[in-house]
Amino acid sequence: MSAPEHAGLPVLTRSALRDETTARVAWSRLAEPGDVMSAGLIREFGVLPALEMVLDALDAAPPPDDGDGRGSRVERYRARARGLDVDRDLEVARRLGLRLLVPGGPGWPAAVDDLAEPPVCLWVRGDLDLAAVSPRSVAIVGARASTSYGDRVAADLAADLSDRRWAVVSGAAFGIDAAAHRGALAAGGDTIAVLAGAAERAYPVAHTQLIDRIAETGAVISEVPPGSAPTRSRFLQRNRLIAALTRGTVVVEAGLRSGALSTLRHAEKLARPWAAVPGPVTSMVSAGCHEAIRRGAVCVTDAAEVVDLLGTVGADLAPEKVGAAVPTDDLPAHVRAVAEAMPLSKAVTVDRLCAVAGQDAATVMAALSTLELRGLVQRVDGGWSRRRRSRA
Amino acid sequence: MSAPEHAGLPVLTRSALRDETTARVAWSRLAEPGDVMSAGLIREFGVLPALEMVLDALDAAPPPDDGDGRGSRVERYRARARGLDVDRDLEVARRLGLRLLVPGGPGWPAAVDDLAEPPVCLWVRGDLDLAAVSPRSVAIVGARASTSYGDRVAADLAADLSDRRWAVVSGAAFGIDAAAHRGALAAGGDTIAVLAGAAERAYPVAHTQLIDRIAETGAVISEVPPGSAPTRSRFLQRNRLIAALTRGTVVVEAGLRSGALSTLRHAEKLARPWAAVPGPVTSMVSAGCHEAIRRGAVCVTDAAEVVDLLGTVGADLAPEKVGAAVPTDDLPAHVRAVAEAMPLSKAVTVDRLCAVAGQDAATVMAALSTLELRGLVQRVDGGWSRRRRSRA
Repeated sequence: MSAPEHAGLPVLTRSALRDETTARVAWSRLAEPGDVMSAGLIREFGVLPALEMVLDALDAAPPPDDGDGRGSRVERYRARARGLDVDRDLEVARRLGLRLLVPGGPGWPAAVDDLAEPPVCLWVRGDLDLAAVSPRSVAIVGARASTSYGDRVAADLAADLSDRRWAVVSGAAFGIDAAAHRGALAAGGDTIAVLAGAAERAYPVAHTQLIDRIAETGAVISEVPPGSAPTRSRFLQRNRLIAALTRGTVVVEAGLRSGALSTLRHAEKLARPWAAVPGPVTSMVSAGCHEAIRRGAVCVTDAAEVVDLLGTVGADLAPEKVGAAVPTDDLPAHVRAVAEAMPLSKAVTVDRLCAVAGQDAATVMAALSTLELRGLVQRVDGGWSRRRRSRA
Repeated sequence: MSAPEHAGLPVLTRSALRDETTARVAWSRLAEPGDVMSAGLIREFGVLPALEMVLDALDAAPPPDDGDGRGSRVERYRARARGLDVDRDLEVARRLGLRLLVPGGPGWPAAVDDLAEPPVCLWVRGDLDLAAVSPRSVAIVGARASTSYGDRVAADLAADLSDRRWAVVSGAAFGIDAAAHRGALAAGGDTIAVLAGAAERAYPVAHTQLIDRIAETGAVISEVPPGSAPTRSRFLQRNRLIAALTRGTVVVEAGLRSGALSTLRHAEKLARPWAAVPGPVTSMVSAGCHEAIRRGAVCVTDAAEVVDLLGTVGADLAPEKVGAAVPTDDLPAHVRAVAEAMPLSKAVTVDRLCAVAGQDAATVMAALSTLELRGLVQRVDGGWSRRRRSRA
């Protein structure tokens, strides 16, 4: 049935909306990512009934004149409903080689359903199995105007996480995002680019080659249908998707207003681990990381610490960092005190050691025996002296 | 009364121990800083009675032969008791211009009494009133092998804290310590050097001039008596004193085994605020700071944040860091969505804005009115366009 003329929906072919999947394609076209109203309707009534309700409402009401007060709440969908053509969207996607993933279907990464406004579907370029990879993936995001320090840290982190078989998810933007993808690719790891515009539309254009390479072995995904442009609000919603897709989010360099911090806040809101890599306090692109750490983000400095944060409790624990051992570390305090009281090169008497170490003679003698056994001191004319250690 | 010959304490003049103050001088000579036994005896019996008990015990027992098993617990004091001469120590201190501070006496910084093994007295070079300054002082400590980044941060931090009338306490060592003292001196602030050796004995020798300058306007202090050499164990005990003297401790650059981290642990143990300044994760001398932050140290990046941490609750609060405001920050989401949907330079129709922003025409028109009032958009041929803002 075609829509009545007065509703202004002449192109819409309702017969194309034959099942939940095609209804999801229609929603993907009608509603902006993160749209609260459609998410609520879908949750309440189901994907296809919610869509029919909205289309019926648009059919029933004449379009209000511009400027004539607020329209009904469904008016927001009218302009896009006019051009709705699900079959064309599916045909275009097929031609572009995009896969369509829907909740509950094959390859759907269930982690994104934790969102209050989950994506209605995902358009995917590349063969990577998102369902399999998402539970062992980490978001690495950050400033576009990154420093060489940040680029290096992001690339190393991504490469090391790849070596540990973690997938790296980012936004393909300039700076930290690109460095993270490149680090993962260089290590032969899985990496996923989540775009604000359509999946086939490389953005930024300068990253066309990078995004092609990501699609070859990994995946380039989007919740907006083919042909859609990236807009600022879609960038922000894209950030929520990056956070939702992954086990946790790490920010490497971010100014105080960086969009990467919004990804971090989404991870926090989703109760996923959220972390930041510190940098020089003199660098404005680390200021957002430090502010995040002060607000509760975990301070991470390498892949082991990231895995420690994201990994299963009991497995994947980062080794506690300690300095190199020195040969007296495991000795009792009074023995160490005597070792420290030894002059660097001269010989020393036991009496003098008693005074310097503040120990009685018996304790000093016992300590010297222990240190002699360790090869650290030796008897010489005039008492005792340090023994030079040969360097390994 | 002179000691019996067999006790080997011929030089000791007991009559010199005429009051608590002279007894403290004697203890300062006899016991190492942080000595648990003397601290326990003093706490239990009082300074003078505890000292007499120890001297009596040494008098009563013959000195054991070297190597003849463990002596009694007081044997540790015998070697130094032989050379004890309180009047000489006081005379030397007077000649060197050292002040002697004792608990409860004028100028005594009561904060150090929170230590399990508090100093028995303090030897002070310089006129700064420690009692007045200590409650508004901060320890800035760190690596000897610092980087130019760390030196700059430490000096700036110390100068900014001086401007806020906070005194800077450190250890006069190479690297971060020296940078902190210099920053405070440059800003005309109060600064205190706590030495591991005697207060008149500039260590390291290369910092003789720096330490002289600190003594001129601030104070150089030690808990060991005139002539005492710095030893490794005294450095560690010195660190506990730095932590105890101050309201809180900040580490700027520290390797994983840095002594500065021991100062931080003492602050933690004393339930004083403990903080660390982050740096590049590629720098080994920031690794100790990052590990400290991961263990619970507060991440601080400037003086405001330090004062926020140390200052009275309600006063001295660091401003929350936010980026520069943009003109749409305070607008409702649907207005911002329309602003963001505006092309950068071209004109756009209301219909197109409805589609791009995903809003109904009435909402878009209302948003455009708001944005026009702000001077952000303008009516043009063909619809609406952004209005260039003049830069302030």
